[in-house]
Amino acid sequence: MPRYKLTLEYHGGAFVGWQRQDNGLGVQQAVEEAVRAFAGETVTVHAAGRTDAGVHAAGQAAHLDLAKDWAADKVRDALNFHLKDLAISVLSAAPVADDFHARFSASGRAYAYRILNRRPPPALEAGQVWWAPKPLDTDAMAEAARVLVGHHDFTSFRAVHCQAKSPVKTLDRLEVQRLGTEILIQARARSFLHHQVRNMVGSLAWVGQGKWTKRDLERALAARDRAAGGPTAPAEGLCLIAVIYDGDPDPSDEN
Amino acid sequence: MPRYKLTLEYHGGAFVGWQRQDNGLGVQQAVEEAVRAFAGETVTVHAAGRTDAGVHAAGQAAHLDLAKDWAADKVRDALNFHLKDLAISVLSAAPVADDFHARFSASGRAYAYRILNRRPPPALEAGQVWWAPKPLDTDAMAEAARVLVGHHDFTSFRAVHCQAKSPVKTLDRLEVQRLGTEILIQARARSFLHHQVRNMVGSLAWVGQGKWTKRDLERALAARDRAAGGPTAPAEGLCLIAVIYDGDPDPSDEN
Repeated sequence: MPRYKLTLEYHGGAFVGWQRQDNGLGVQQAVEEAVRAFAGETVTVHAAGRTDAGVHAAGQAAHLDLAKDWAADKVRDALNFHLKDLAISVLSAAPVADDFHARFSASGRAYAYRILNRRPPPALEAGQVWWAPKPLDTDAMAEAARVLVGHHDFTSFRAVHCQAKSPVKTLDRLEVQRLGTEILIQARARSFLHHQVRNMVGSLAWVGQGKWTKRDLERALAARDRAAGGPTAPAEGLCLIAVIYDGDPDPSDEN
Repeated sequence: MPRYKLTLEYHGGAFVGWQRQDNGLGVQQAVEEAVRAFAGETVTVHAAGRTDAGVHAAGQAAHLDLAKDWAADKVRDALNFHLKDLAISVLSAAPVADDFHARFSASGRAYAYRILNRRPPPALEAGQVWWAPKPLDTDAMAEAARVLVGHHDFTSFRAVHCQAKSPVKTLDRLEVQRLGTEILIQARARSFLHHQVRNMVGSLAWVGQGKWTKRDLERALAARDRAAGGPTAPAEGLCLIAVIYDGDPDPSDEN
């Protein structure tokens, strides 16, 4: 039973998130229905990360098993044909070993968070950025971000309903840079807690506003208490850029 | 009667173009209605370029006269408040001299055209790129683009219903570059003929497909006949990046 890895791009604003929900279409459901339409098979598509409602992906990874041995490019093109009315694009399909698992085999996840930091609202980038009309001190945010890099208990930046067994994670990268009126925050880790990136970004925004210092962020981290952390940044600014597997070329060099 | 210059960003997909039409909302009309809502005045807003339906702007320029002497930032913020449900953002409002005219005072226009050149369709950039699924030879396009730079009769790249008195224009810049799966074409001139950028891009795409050589493009230009030019590229890939006025800093350095 051949297994395929898919790389997916999608606009999170069009879906209730990766997972099927009662209140609307999930990306997973849309892809599973496209598989049924093209191959006549009812499959489960497993993603590397179950993105929340509104969160975008430029490089989500997923896997599925098909009964028939289709050419990988045929799988990609057929899924895109059946997904053509939805904001989902299958960037690639590739045959993988039977023991490949999109979620459990992944050795890293790279996210980008975009803040539009200008007084006029977004017109062209609406829905893909967090609009922050008041000036943010990007240097202070970049400096404070270093506090969070490394091996820590991230309870203060973890959604209260997060189901991960341990709140301890290693954050490999958290960089803040200004590109004109946009602030780009890039995060990378083996894995993240639920809402971790958005909660870290919300806390960094407090630093950017001058409401918090770097020292306050250190205290929040040390508190190991979600109530001590900053607010959750909106979903629409977040994008899952890439999922990394051992042996793949490192995509972080391209960002 | 104070005159204001506006710099506007808008998503062309939401409008029938700059000008008022019977079949939907024009950007001009939307801005004029916002002026009426905030200042109670019925004004005409004059743009530097009357973009077609679907064409985006990151830096359209326009001017209008108001009876009252409002603070410029108040004009910007009040217009944005009344435009908040539309994909239009007023990036800036500035007082200008009585003889400033957004269209006639402009000394240059800079456009960008984006082609997404990959087999999978766009999900995140849908509506803001021309999707070209077959590989285009960017080097050949960049080389051919030089044919069009300079002082020429552009009849072959001019919409048949174009109302400009002369088809002779000076194209200051036409550059093609590849950025991953995207091809970015940047054009700049004092002014352009109707559909000129989209017709040049359509012709360059033929070069990229191998359907035309650089020599064919030279022949098309020399023919001075629209029937000899290539096809019109779709509106959705085109964006008016900036309008240049003498004395302004040159925005082309930023691209």
